[in-house]
Amino acid sequence: MDTVGTSLDASLLEGLRELLGDRLSVNETERVNHGMDESSFPPAAPDAVAFLGSTAEASELVRLCAEHDTPVIPFGAGTSLEGHVLATRGGVAVVMTGMDRILEVNVEDLDATVQAGVTRKQLNDGLRDHGLFFPVDPGADASIGGMASTRASGTTAVRYGTMRDNVLALTVVLADGRIIRTGTRARKSSAGYDLTRLFVGSEGTLGLITEVTVRLQGVPPAISSAICRFPTIDQAVDTVISTIQFGIPIARVELLDEPALEAVNAFSGLDCALEPTLFLEFHGSDAGVVEQAQEVQELARNSGGTDFEWATRTEERNRLWQARHDAYWAALASRPGCRSITTDVCVPISRLGECIGETKADIAEGTLNAPLVGHVGDGNFHLTILVEPGNEEELREASELNGRLIRRALSMGGTCTGEHGVGYGKMGYLVEEHGEAIDTMRTIKVALDPNGIMNPGKVIDVGEAARDPAATGSSR
Amino acid sequence: MDTVGTSLDASLLEGLRELLGDRLSVNETERVNHGMDESSFPPAAPDAVAFLGSTAEASELVRLCAEHDTPVIPFGAGTSLEGHVLATRGGVAVVMTGMDRILEVNVEDLDATVQAGVTRKQLNDGLRDHGLFFPVDPGADASIGGMASTRASGTTAVRYGTMRDNVLALTVVLADGRIIRTGTRARKSSAGYDLTRLFVGSEGTLGLITEVTVRLQGVPPAISSAICRFPTIDQAVDTVISTIQFGIPIARVELLDEPALEAVNAFSGLDCALEPTLFLEFHGSDAGVVEQAQEVQELARNSGGTDFEWATRTEERNRLWQARHDAYWAALASRPGCRSITTDVCVPISRLGECIGETKADIAEGTLNAPLVGHVGDGNFHLTILVEPGNEEELREASELNGRLIRRALSMGGTCTGEHGVGYGKMGYLVEEHGEAIDTMRTIKVALDPNGIMNPGKVIDVGEAARDPAATGSSR
Repeated sequence: MDTVGTSLDASLLEGLRELLGDRLSVNETERVNHGMDESSFPPAAPDAVAFLGSTAEASELVRLCAEHDTPVIPFGAGTSLEGHVLATRGGVAVVMTGMDRILEVNVEDLDATVQAGVTRKQLNDGLRDHGLFFPVDPGADASIGGMASTRASGTTAVRYGTMRDNVLALTVVLADGRIIRTGTRARKSSAGYDLTRLFVGSEGTLGLITEVTVRLQGVPPAISSAICRFPTIDQAVDTVISTIQFGIPIARVELLDEPALEAVNAFSGLDCALEPTLFLEFHGSDAGVVEQAQEVQELARNSGGTDFEWATRTEERNRLWQARHDAYWAALASRPGCRSITTDVCVPISRLGECIGETKADIAEGTLNAPLVGHVGDGNFHLTILVEPGNEEELREASELNGRLIRRALSMGGTCTGEHGVGYGKMGYLVEEHGEAIDTMRTIKVALDPNGIMNPGKVIDVGEAARDPAATGSSR
Repeated sequence: MDTVGTSLDASLLEGLRELLGDRLSVNETERVNHGMDESSFPPAAPDAVAFLGSTAEASELVRLCAEHDTPVIPFGAGTSLEGHVLATRGGVAVVMTGMDRILEVNVEDLDATVQAGVTRKQLNDGLRDHGLFFPVDPGADASIGGMASTRASGTTAVRYGTMRDNVLALTVVLADGRIIRTGTRARKSSAGYDLTRLFVGSEGTLGLITEVTVRLQGVPPAISSAICRFPTIDQAVDTVISTIQFGIPIARVELLDEPALEAVNAFSGLDCALEPTLFLEFHGSDAGVVEQAQEVQELARNSGGTDFEWATRTEERNRLWQARHDAYWAALASRPGCRSITTDVCVPISRLGECIGETKADIAEGTLNAPLVGHVGDGNFHLTILVEPGNEEELREASELNGRLIRRALSMGGTCTGEHGVGYGKMGYLVEEHGEAIDTMRTIKVALDPNGIMNPGKVIDVGEAARDPAATGSSR
């Protein structure tokens, strides 16, 4: 792959330079750095890297790229896990991190509008004085625009929902450079097609998200966290199923298996016993939190769980959840120099125990370490399958393990990706999951991006013409 | 408008008869009955009425209609309010009420799959023995398919969300007769474009919904309802704003003004005092319900509200909420022979008091009675503007009042329709609300229904060609 010379059309390069000045880079290091994410796919560098400052600039950039049939690849925090940002057909990486302003916070309406490059932690820092928070929390400190693009979620989705539920409206630059607003600040609306939900999860393939209006939550009067150990994963999962079925509004309920705990202990200096463990959090009034916790403790005990070990002080709680969020990095650190193939199935919760059980047995038959963490209240769990870069045998074993896991989840009425998105890595599985509906997605893609310049080669294959780089007008 | 003879192509008629036998009707009464809804628009009868029994039949019907460029207009319970079902360009009304089977209830996963013609009350009757319920409750006993089509909601959206939030997946017949499934039973997914949310709210203009997989809720251990009166509407609204801002998980909070209460008292035999009144409901554990109610009672008292009058017995509660759901019929009954122009704006809650205040002043300057009811926790309220059919002056006054209300809501960052949909009646306002984004909606419509046969003349105007009935291939 060419990562040295840039091959953008000279007049496009000139136009972009005029628009952005020194915020347009063709420096090799910049290009390589913006042609990779956290996945194990080899980097694919763009021809140029554009550091955007405004929606108006985004519009002009897309218009210029459209004139030159050149791919536009949005780049947020670079933390995606399926090769979403790889410039597999060259083009311009559009870096959103400079669009980092919180534009408005409407305290009374519990909403905020931010530029796409604002990260979730930055937003929460900006909300703290208002007594509000934005609940969606993927492990990484991702950008809000990137989270909208991948329909991300995290540990709190069981209570507060995913980006699907927490985005009210978007500002989007379309494939021809036009700017649209997809909704209002009204809490609900039946006014026409749900463009907001169409662009959420479209991974930059239908348009470029530049601003996001999100729902906020009031910080609950009481928060308490606990951990609870179980003799087997099945018993932990049974507790979660009962908790959901009883309608207990648990805020977080995360499963870690023994290999995950071992990695977390080493990385974050915890001393968790190596038994299947739930990390729990309760939000509510003082009395409400006590009541919820008592109910879940009783369900856990009935399933063989230990007494809750509490983390009630803010620092203890933060340490616990930071460790949980760092589980991915902890797994990577457990094998120096490795990369991860990270799985992401989500199944109906009644099948979760079975799905995890069969998957653990499958791992045990292979050679790889694959710590398991799960947003089990949603039926969603991840393996961090640790592989040595360049070790073809390990990559193949990991990829086959993931494939069997995905087919297992699909056969149980689940999905190949609960929150990471399709990117480059799951395009084949998307077809398996959706069958004939994939054609409807393709029709929408072709209608909204007829020249195929918006993050091409991701999510959906638009046919032979687009698969052949020469035919897309791409510069490589 | 021709409501006597049918003008379907003879070979289409023959094909439909072969498919449906005596479930295909060209009887005038059937046609007229299936060319009207609850709106005040004059009926527009279809050329034929098809009573469907299965998704396979729906697919074959759409394929036949596509071959003959003939409109397909879905018809559920007939309770829509914006002329959604009017066959303004002739064609075939497709009656879904025969598809009335609950296909599966997954108690452990809190979901169910139903045929589109199942009504919300029928579904809830079927769920009662499982200790589950389906929360979305528009006033009418609408069909689940119709509710999905209009992105309906009701009194419980403040707690449980709208159809947008409560549909997991759909079976849809596309404009060429192909059948797709838009999702799985997984609670969350990032697998490609969100086709489920695209078809929810598309009002039959992109495809025909034949099956719906919905989320369910466990019946809470404790439920209690109350009413609370206030000296002014502003004070009632202030209480609601505080309730939402404090994050109190209220299950229902409905406002009725004096004219609405007068109508409800007469229609349902209640004896509510004629002061702005909130109807409230709390769901949770025994202790949780008491705590929520105490908190809201305190907020209400601070705003000049009365002590709560409780309805704790199931029969009392049901009577109260049935009266609330019947408020629309009560308003109609207050002026025999009248029809209603029913408004549906939704605004950010911080603007709700102002929006209602200005609207009440506007009503007071006119001649019409317009009882107000509101799902005020969402910022959504309705006027039932009572007009005499055929009285052009009243229709004009009502329509202008609605227009001013919609522009007021839009100027406050709100939407022209919170839950009723666009149909035939709000197409112009949709353009005002969405601006340039309307073109994106049009692009999607044209891509998914290139011949414009799916409920044409609703939601979105696809241009002159389609506006001219002669050019659509319609039979009139």
